[in-house]
Amino acid sequence: MEVRKVLLSEDEMPRQWYNILADIKMNPPLGPDGQPVKPEMLAPVFPMNLIEQEVSTERWIDIPEGILQILKIWRPSPLVRALFLEKALDTPARIYYKNEGVSPPGSHKPNTAVAQAYYNKEFGIKKITTETGAGQWGSALSFACCQFGIECKVFMVRVSFDQKPYRKSMMEAWGGHCVASPSTETEAGRQALAKDPETPGSLGIAISEAIEAAVSDKSGTTRYSLGSVLNHVLLHQTIIGLEAKKQLEKIGEYPDVVIGCAGGGSNFAGLAFPFVLDKINGRDLEIYPVEPAACPTMTRAPFVYDHGDTARYTPLLPMHSLGHAFVPPPFHAGGLRYHGMAPTVSQLVTEGIISPKAVRQLEAYKAGVQFARTEGVIPAPETTHALAYVAQEARKAKEEGREKVILVNFSGHGLLDFAGYDKYFSGKLDNYALSDEQLAEAESAFADFPKPQHLKSR
Amino acid sequence: MEVRKVLLSEDEMPRQWYNILADIKMNPPLGPDGQPVKPEMLAPVFPMNLIEQEVSTERWIDIPEGILQILKIWRPSPLVRALFLEKALDTPARIYYKNEGVSPPGSHKPNTAVAQAYYNKEFGIKKITTETGAGQWGSALSFACCQFGIECKVFMVRVSFDQKPYRKSMMEAWGGHCVASPSTETEAGRQALAKDPETPGSLGIAISEAIEAAVSDKSGTTRYSLGSVLNHVLLHQTIIGLEAKKQLEKIGEYPDVVIGCAGGGSNFAGLAFPFVLDKINGRDLEIYPVEPAACPTMTRAPFVYDHGDTARYTPLLPMHSLGHAFVPPPFHAGGLRYHGMAPTVSQLVTEGIISPKAVRQLEAYKAGVQFARTEGVIPAPETTHALAYVAQEARKAKEEGREKVILVNFSGHGLLDFAGYDKYFSGKLDNYALSDEQLAEAESAFADFPKPQHLKSR
Repeated sequence: MEVRKVLLSEDEMPRQWYNILADIKMNPPLGPDGQPVKPEMLAPVFPMNLIEQEVSTERWIDIPEGILQILKIWRPSPLVRALFLEKALDTPARIYYKNEGVSPPGSHKPNTAVAQAYYNKEFGIKKITTETGAGQWGSALSFACCQFGIECKVFMVRVSFDQKPYRKSMMEAWGGHCVASPSTETEAGRQALAKDPETPGSLGIAISEAIEAAVSDKSGTTRYSLGSVLNHVLLHQTIIGLEAKKQLEKIGEYPDVVIGCAGGGSNFAGLAFPFVLDKINGRDLEIYPVEPAACPTMTRAPFVYDHGDTARYTPLLPMHSLGHAFVPPPFHAGGLRYHGMAPTVSQLVTEGIISPKAVRQLEAYKAGVQFARTEGVIPAPETTHALAYVAQEARKAKEEGREKVILVNFSGHGLLDFAGYDKYFSGKLDNYALSDEQLAEAESAFADFPKPQHLKSR
Repeated sequence: MEVRKVLLSEDEMPRQWYNILADIKMNPPLGPDGQPVKPEMLAPVFPMNLIEQEVSTERWIDIPEGILQILKIWRPSPLVRALFLEKALDTPARIYYKNEGVSPPGSHKPNTAVAQAYYNKEFGIKKITTETGAGQWGSALSFACCQFGIECKVFMVRVSFDQKPYRKSMMEAWGGHCVASPSTETEAGRQALAKDPETPGSLGIAISEAIEAAVSDKSGTTRYSLGSVLNHVLLHQTIIGLEAKKQLEKIGEYPDVVIGCAGGGSNFAGLAFPFVLDKINGRDLEIYPVEPAACPTMTRAPFVYDHGDTARYTPLLPMHSLGHAFVPPPFHAGGLRYHGMAPTVSQLVTEGIISPKAVRQLEAYKAGVQFARTEGVIPAPETTHALAYVAQEARKAKEEGREKVILVNFSGHGLLDFAGYDKYFSGKLDNYALSDEQLAEAESAFADFPKPQHLKSR
């Protein structure tokens, strides 16, 4: 009988993260004066040890024992051969999914939440603020803060807060505090509400609120934490791809295609970056970040300098962006409702090293239901976007008659996301896509900003 | 660093189930005539291959390859050392939990759901009906039926149906159909509604509805499936304990104490029966099934002959019972709201081989929150009952200064059970316990039935 799952023992867990900054050239983040941001300027927002990690160009960074100890609650995560899905798709491709849904909060997010809580604790921080879209990140940070005895405050994008009431309960189970964003607790939130009291909210607004809540705490022991986009966040996620590589090696496989959904970029990068390194070193493979057609930063928006948040608290980051003021439609993959894209992922797109794809909501749910009914595991709405593209690649493999090896990041389960599935089954799900007019309007947000250079890493 | 998780490879999965009927004496089930039920009398309800398994006294029964293939989606499940919980309890005990929450439906239930769907498929059955309490069983059977292309119809106890709306969505994601019980679709349901239109429902009523729906289908290709209580159901669950034994052996451990929550008895038996075998063979250990104080079949109700369902469709089973008419209060551990107890588990109780304990809802939730905040995993309300007793045993170990090894079945996660947690956090949770008056009234249900013999297996 064929192997379903490839497991690693705790001893086989990677002891280092892979830092892609060692292998690509990046435009620097810019401050309000248009000059590169100095690390110390970020000190009110992040603890210094994480800022140092953010700017490090060391290729391999040791994972502290105190982090590994918590990760072992669920890591190494299984790599699973999707035999039943392959059969349903009638494809010669071999499909492997890295199941990040096995973590207590149900997604890949705790990989960095645990690391960030650890470093904040080391730095003497008592409270962390953050934003969350679908709730995966807020849950993960609540979980991680609980492990280290740190207070956790989460601003959750309103549309998801309303769609997924039990996400708040989950955060509370771990002792976290969650409010809907925009809230009346911050200046950024009050401004957003004044502009549109009915706003569904956005990650951009929620980030502004969380940063404001952190820097305005006069005790000096509160910091902000971001669940995606930044270099150190993506760094912590590379344990996914490093494990997957070991697991595939064990059974003599190497992927022809690597796929992950991408909102801010962290689950995609977590799986893909260790394979990007191979590609930079000459290996032949295709790497696809998959985004929603309703928020198509990589496939339709330009590579520009833009703020990471709506209230423009963050430095200007070099990234694919729909504009910091963009509020995506209320589709269900809340984790993909972000106006920008991680600078490192954006840089790889501009260089053609990775090839972004966009998928619409109905196609994504269709693939999600097929996955649930074959492989048994119910995917998060974000994850269904990656699965939709897996199905496309599997069909292509069939047309080409190729025994392709497809590796996909199963970023999380959908057990707290049934509102979207209910709508899908009742035929009431919208099939949003960005219009040209929306795109043109969105671009006005960064029209006056400096432009990043077109760098070539290889 | 100490080991957190003990894993088995797919090759190390048990290839046989342990059948406790080889090692204990049982009173036979009785038909309406007061005579032992003949296997063929059950043929309208169950497929013949499962009926044969129900009455088999072979000690070891092979697990068919077609079942193993599906179980491998998530099995073998991890055995985890609860290091952080031990620390919080400040106990010298070593606590290990067998994590059955890693299955796609989130509990131990698919262990038998997959087996039952397989045998029904083998027998040519096209549709399976069942009941569900908390929704764990209905989800598991929907998942399993989906894997084998069988239609699945679930009658869900109304109080849980209302408390946990997303359980229905989950069943639908796997193509199952779920209605609240009592429903108007069956005679048993209509009678229950006539008696009390506001009834919270009970497993007893839901079982009656599901049996009626199965036997009244004239096509002859519909059968009923039960998620607990019966011998073959508990048999399929023994893979849990057999795996746990192998995992403990790997690290040179053997439990002094084995603990599982018990509603119908299946998750308790799944973990415990392979250790009961050792105890019968002379090994010294304590084995505790833990039940809710609001539905205390083993700790307070007598060992009698009673029906497994409210409408008295089932044979008379020799078991601890609160009476087939008993409707437990609407506490949140829906899977423990059953008036009876598996005959095999009941028999072990009467012989003193296992020692039942009862826990109240508030103590259970307290232990559940402590577990979530230390070990990170959020337990199902049923599971919290076992964890509450783990905490009692750990405290006892501390008082005695003993390095006890405690093994507990983590029967499922609570990610679809946040309504109960919300109530707990807001201080609105009831702390039900059965009154003497309720007990006396309940006992009238079986006053006229034959009495089982007091057998001694050893």
